[in-house]
Amino acid sequence: MKGNVLVGQSGGPTAVINSSLAGVFKAATELGYGKVYGMRHGIQGFLQGKYVDMAEQIRNDLDLELLKHTPSAFLGSCRYKLPEIDQDNAIFDRIFALLDELNIEVCIYIGGNDSMDTIRKLYDYGQKIGSTRKFVGCPKTIDNDLAITDHTPGFGSAAKYIATSTKEIICDAVAFANKKNVNIVEIMGRNAGWLTGAAALSKGDDCVGPDLIYLPELPFSIEGFVDEVKKLLETKDVVTAMVSEGIKTAEGKYVCEYASSSKTTDAFGHLQMSGTAAYLASVVQGQLGCKTRAIEFSTLQRAASHMASKVDVDEAFNAGSATVRAADKGISGVMVLIKRVNDNPYQSGNDVYDVHNIANAEKVVPRDWINEKGNGVTEQFINYVRPLIQGYDVPVMVNGVPRHLVLKEK
Amino acid sequence: MKGNVLVGQSGGPTAVINSSLAGVFKAATELGYGKVYGMRHGIQGFLQGKYVDMAEQIRNDLDLELLKHTPSAFLGSCRYKLPEIDQDNAIFDRIFALLDELNIEVCIYIGGNDSMDTIRKLYDYGQKIGSTRKFVGCPKTIDNDLAITDHTPGFGSAAKYIATSTKEIICDAVAFANKKNVNIVEIMGRNAGWLTGAAALSKGDDCVGPDLIYLPELPFSIEGFVDEVKKLLETKDVVTAMVSEGIKTAEGKYVCEYASSSKTTDAFGHLQMSGTAAYLASVVQGQLGCKTRAIEFSTLQRAASHMASKVDVDEAFNAGSATVRAADKGISGVMVLIKRVNDNPYQSGNDVYDVHNIANAEKVVPRDWINEKGNGVTEQFINYVRPLIQGYDVPVMVNGVPRHLVLKEK
Repeated sequence: MKGNVLVGQSGGPTAVINSSLAGVFKAATELGYGKVYGMRHGIQGFLQGKYVDMAEQIRNDLDLELLKHTPSAFLGSCRYKLPEIDQDNAIFDRIFALLDELNIEVCIYIGGNDSMDTIRKLYDYGQKIGSTRKFVGCPKTIDNDLAITDHTPGFGSAAKYIATSTKEIICDAVAFANKKNVNIVEIMGRNAGWLTGAAALSKGDDCVGPDLIYLPELPFSIEGFVDEVKKLLETKDVVTAMVSEGIKTAEGKYVCEYASSSKTTDAFGHLQMSGTAAYLASVVQGQLGCKTRAIEFSTLQRAASHMASKVDVDEAFNAGSATVRAADKGISGVMVLIKRVNDNPYQSGNDVYDVHNIANAEKVVPRDWINEKGNGVTEQFINYVRPLIQGYDVPVMVNGVPRHLVLKEK
Repeated sequence: MKGNVLVGQSGGPTAVINSSLAGVFKAATELGYGKVYGMRHGIQGFLQGKYVDMAEQIRNDLDLELLKHTPSAFLGSCRYKLPEIDQDNAIFDRIFALLDELNIEVCIYIGGNDSMDTIRKLYDYGQKIGSTRKFVGCPKTIDNDLAITDHTPGFGSAAKYIATSTKEIICDAVAFANKKNVNIVEIMGRNAGWLTGAAALSKGDDCVGPDLIYLPELPFSIEGFVDEVKKLLETKDVVTAMVSEGIKTAEGKYVCEYASSSKTTDAFGHLQMSGTAAYLASVVQGQLGCKTRAIEFSTLQRAASHMASKVDVDEAFNAGSATVRAADKGISGVMVLIKRVNDNPYQSGNDVYDVHNIANAEKVVPRDWINEKGNGVTEQFINYVRPLIQGYDVPVMVNGVPRHLVLKEK
């Protein structure tokens, strides 16, 4: 008889991370595992003995469907860094004691780089103590910066939201095109510009798209930026610039650091970013004297499940399912990948890859997918992203707003 | 034989202002008027002789449908204040000469308070010179601050977007509920808190809704706000506060003025607002030391046609249609109203009202629709708004993003 499955969610939420959770639950049930337990707030909450029985949360197919369309981490998330396995046995002993207690055969962690770091350590510790349980990572991040996998669940929906919202913002700005105005839009992405570049997908027969796109992959010149805006304003009235929150000047200083000195960092030492667009808007307004507006998509870009991509929802579900199926075949210490099987028509499948070669690596936008001037993306970039934002899952609307599934505490 | 119709759009765009434009075009065509001309950038562009022939823009029913779902002002907008009719004849003479030249029998202006001021002056000037042409206003504003009408087209869709996005933001924040965090969300509305209050519609079985809602109708205490947040953080980890961009302290100073000294004003003397949430977030972070995040819905709240309310799209279309039908009956100097015919089930109809009693008046949230402490809205408020966010018009999606109709310049 098979044991139980444990699943956790970690890092920044996405619009489809719960679709992966639904996939884990469905596959575990279908493959005849016992209970499926969900860690509350990832490994951090689990260490405090906090978990739920997923069967009490997902009671029927409607619940499962609602879960697939609920944004953010249903189980709660955390940003918690495990020590190296030779540094602190006590934490690992505690975790493995809990795994024993709950008769966990398969442990799934849905997350990004930092979460794969957690899977790597748990797997390595398991090997060290001779445990046979399986540890499998499920990719998740709006940032699309995980190595090896073609792309990550969560990216497509965030990209679709960004392309749609950028289109609406440009449409709005053009209404006042008889007055010079500059919109500067800030998009998430510390070191990888995938999401910022996705704003280019707003361009089409009915939209001119952004004029300038700055990714964190290249050094950013504040002076050069103002010059570009000035030049554009000579021939057009509305200028739209997209900037990644992570853009840095050649000196290696984040642009957002020019804006404020009171920045804080999280458990992984990442700077909490915000204010890049606001700072640049104030510089442009000061130097060029035109009307400017700074717009931040903020947490909406990762939580807007109402604009989720159908491709993304499905791929997230399949990736979740694939983690349990891999473990069921005896595979451990891996992350599930999405493989692009075909470009046109777009087709994808799953595979697995050694998590040691994924954890803490970052996939950034290749230089030749950014235009020569460093202020836009190429057709190759657009062709890569376009299939991932396809398909539209109409939200389940109740009382005028989308319906979500929420965790029932005992 | 009937003459021609002229239509313009003015003021801040909305998600459904083009649905009203579609209604004007459809009714004018059905009622046998000649051409329908559209002012480019409202009365300001028209004064420069800029207009288009709408039949060249809307060539078939698909164009009409796309127009109904295109955000922002299709014809371009303006913020332009006409002089009083006894101050400057030259401008009015120029406008009326153009109306003669184009054989305009009916002139429609779609807009808010300031636009109704324009209709009032054009009508009064017409009366003064003995013109028989009709001037009719079509209500439009996300702010819902127009007098007499039950509500305004544009409000319902903005309210639906705000309720939906607030729900998603709260869902996102709760994922990290093991860490104290405060989200402060800034919503449009200078003097009327209708939109800010609409965030309360996020509350339901699956969402706790915002904890605090501050409307501009009541004086705002920065100190009192920090105290409320502090008190809430004693019993819960995630606090969500909605603030109107127009909140002022008891001394009459806008909170956003504390944030920055470089504020500009528009043609009507309105302060360009922004930064209220950012300022309050910095105060809370400074005084309480918890993680805070400032979120502005910015122009998205007025441009997000992808989350338009079906009720709103239809009412906007009907209001546009009703302007031409009123003029066709010989009525002039009026604004079309929306009348709530029945509450449950919700039913509405149109009527007209003397524009002199509407222009420059502002409808704010009644005191008894705000809770006693002044930090939330009542059931009455929610019951009033709920029907207006109903129904969901699935966007026409092309290449993964919603399709819009854009103006073809010659």
